[in-house]
Amino acid sequence: MREFILRASKALTSPDFNLNDLPSSGGRMDLVCRCISSALWVSNDLRRDTKIFVVLEGPPNPPRTIVFDGFSLKGVNPDERNIASHIKKALKFGLNLELNQEIEVSPGIKIAKKSFESLIKEKSKEMQLIYLHPEGKDIRELEIRENVAFILGDHIGISRKTERLIERLKAEKVSLGKKIYLASHAIVIANYELDRRWSK
Amino acid sequence: MREFILRASKALTSPDFNLNDLPSSGGRMDLVCRCISSALWVSNDLRRDTKIFVVLEGPPNPPRTIVFDGFSLKGVNPDERNIASHIKKALKFGLNLELNQEIEVSPGIKIAKKSFESLIKEKSKEMQLIYLHPEGKDIRELEIRENVAFILGDHIGISRKTERLIERLKAEKVSLGKKIYLASHAIVIANYELDRRWSK
Repeated sequence: MREFILRASKALTSPDFNLNDLPSSGGRMDLVCRCISSALWVSNDLRRDTKIFVVLEGPPNPPRTIVFDGFSLKGVNPDERNIASHIKKALKFGLNLELNQEIEVSPGIKIAKKSFESLIKEKSKEMQLIYLHPEGKDIRELEIRENVAFILGDHIGISRKTERLIERLKAEKVSLGKKIYLASHAIVIANYELDRRWSK
Repeated sequence: MREFILRASKALTSPDFNLNDLPSSGGRMDLVCRCISSALWVSNDLRRDTKIFVVLEGPPNPPRTIVFDGFSLKGVNPDERNIASHIKKALKFGLNLELNQEIEVSPGIKIAKKSFESLIKEKSKEMQLIYLHPEGKDIRELEIRENVAFILGDHIGISRKTERLIERLKAEKVSLGKKIYLASHAIVIANYELDRRWSK
């Protein structure tokens, strides 16, 4: 199982964003949608062994964690607007959640009121955690286990406090080389590096 | 110089597509926009040494070739809708072009009435041509020159006739491994493989 965990610190947590203006009304919801597309789509198929969790932390109801699961996802297209329309629907369903309650919105899409910190604590018990960071160890020199979760920040990055939690959870700091990539591109590259290893 | 050449066989060649429906009204214009975003954006910057040519071949005025040049591009954002709005503007400016005429639309964006075949013939004189194809030689075993252009098909692929031209132009058939990727993801990966080599 491959998982990606994106912290979207400004992304709206109500369905009241405008599909015609994802960057501004959605708090960079365009970036969130591109990350989902990067995590799950390959040519003519979805990655059935992959999930992406996006933790939305913008106003008015943070946090909301939405998971898109390639195993069961249906009827979603890889364009930003289509993915955003599914996020909108999930946020509508998830308006009145209680803490840590999770509900299924449609095949392969669930929403929970769960914080980034709770999510990565949970994941650390069952998976290898990798924190993508320009100063980490080169991904090409890393031993990667079969169950792996990659943690990514958005354009704002991840606070020092959360970084300390990530360290305590023994996540490995891993770099993709000398360039710094958009989160969505980093996901494509992480998927590619894993494909390269596991299809040998 | 790095260049990408995308053949978008169904993408509209008039500005009359709907920004609210890029996949269908635009003839998979969403895919075109994602490819442009993949080619040119890195974190907090554009790739100044990179261009992407998209050859639109859908109705009603094919062909139209639009180039986005990272060196001089300004005021464009990496989300699909914003890139699509610039394509729309370019198509408006380029309605009455004569064959092989090219005009500048805004900083870093030009449009020409030029066919895919003419474009790759031109490029073959000045650059190493790489045709991304699942059956090609592994990119990790390839010698890549400094001036390189990658040729990609869209979701429809490239016809046998054009493949023969690509062969005659001595383009190298190169693969990214065993998975088959979306064109936009293939561009991210090609950029990454080049970054890895050239930043050592």
